[in-house]
Amino acid sequence: MPRYKVTIAYDGTDFAGFQRQPAQRTIESVLTRVVNKIAKNEAETIEVFGSGRTDSGVHAYGQVVHFDLPFAIPAEGLRHGLNSMFPLDLMAVAVEQVDDDFHSRFNTHGKQYRYKIARNEFVDPFKRRYTYNFKYNLDLELIKTAMKDLIGIHDFTSFAAAGNSTKDFVREIYDVQLIEYPELNEIHFVFNGNGFLYNQVRIMTAVLLEIGTKKRPVHDILRLFEVKNRLEAPLTAPAHGLYLEKVFYDQSDK
Amino acid sequence: MPRYKVTIAYDGTDFAGFQRQPAQRTIESVLTRVVNKIAKNEAETIEVFGSGRTDSGVHAYGQVVHFDLPFAIPAEGLRHGLNSMFPLDLMAVAVEQVDDDFHSRFNTHGKQYRYKIARNEFVDPFKRRYTYNFKYNLDLELIKTAMKDLIGIHDFTSFAAAGNSTKDFVREIYDVQLIEYPELNEIHFVFNGNGFLYNQVRIMTAVLLEIGTKKRPVHDILRLFEVKNRLEAPLTAPAHGLYLEKVFYDQSDK
Repeated sequence: MPRYKVTIAYDGTDFAGFQRQPAQRTIESVLTRVVNKIAKNEAETIEVFGSGRTDSGVHAYGQVVHFDLPFAIPAEGLRHGLNSMFPLDLMAVAVEQVDDDFHSRFNTHGKQYRYKIARNEFVDPFKRRYTYNFKYNLDLELIKTAMKDLIGIHDFTSFAAAGNSTKDFVREIYDVQLIEYPELNEIHFVFNGNGFLYNQVRIMTAVLLEIGTKKRPVHDILRLFEVKNRLEAPLTAPAHGLYLEKVFYDQSDK
Repeated sequence: MPRYKVTIAYDGTDFAGFQRQPAQRTIESVLTRVVNKIAKNEAETIEVFGSGRTDSGVHAYGQVVHFDLPFAIPAEGLRHGLNSMFPLDLMAVAVEQVDDDFHSRFNTHGKQYRYKIARNEFVDPFKRRYTYNFKYNLDLELIKTAMKDLIGIHDFTSFAAAGNSTKDFVREIYDVQLIEYPELNEIHFVFNGNGFLYNQVRIMTAVLLEIGTKKRPVHDILRLFEVKNRLEAPLTAPAHGLYLEKVFYDQSDK
């Protein structure tokens, strides 16, 4: 059975997250339906495997999935087929036939997330689905200093929402950047790491914004690593600012 | 009664156009409800007058409306009040107290519309509500040449959809431009004129795209002015690419 790796982009607004759920429109359920239709498999037994879940409202530029088809289709033809059957808020960016041992979830070396913050006094109607509008003053130098504390191998217990069965809260963050887009009146936080806990990026973003508004001391992240207690970092930045940007499969990617 | 001129922006996707209609969510109905609430006018007798209608799905960066309040409110306070009560797909960009003889519709000297065309092979999920995706090859030089034929005073009968009671189809176009945004993979058509007929911008856009794909000769617009027959230009570019960008009230504006 030929295996395909497909990179997808989606506007998460109208999806109830990635994971298949009864009577909900999710990325996984739409993908599964379309892939089984392309495979002419009425029993819908072909499974689609994602690199990981994204929550309701979270977007993706570069989510990766894989699945097996009963017959080979040229990659470019499959990309056209998928895009012609996908709803307009989902797009196949790239399609590649891969070896049988490729697995979108187990082969990852890491991921990159981007969190987009608009800096307008009022919510821009054209950005309301795609950025988090944060109108308060921010000291960007404080945020840049605090970001460096996130880099490295740490116990992220204080930055993980309850809601899945993870026991191991140690993750490595390779890099964090603040990028300014003055022409858009936006700043983006880009997080690059070997893996992220449930809501981790949104909780880290909320903490960085509290540091930028001087509600927390600049090196409070070091204290949060020590206390290992989510109650010390209770805020979660909203889903609609978050994008899964890249999933890394080669060591050279990161 | 103090009169206010308010410049508004909206994402037209989830509105059934500007004009009030029974049981429909329109710009006018939302504005009327909010303005009467601010005026503490439970009878909802305050009317909101727009510079003109926009169709269902058409966006605005700079639509202009006016209304009278029973008491004066500082302009900046009114802007905050409106934005705190508007839904997130509608925004007050600017508020100004104006003379009693100002009228958003009758005082206009012209308008500027922008039509956004994305040039991707497949619809970008993040642009699907905000651009018309046109994947076919376009000869931009042909379009630029054809655009010059639109400039000036002409009978636009061939470019007007049926559906309102206009008898006079003569309008003046001051300027038309094609602007390329290579970093966005978009081209925009910007139309500047003293007034536009029903669907005129969308029909002109469709004709320009036909010229760009060589389905029409480059100077076919001159023929369309002569024949005065909409059947000769039957296509209408979709609403979601169109933006009302500016409404002009001073001669110096245009």
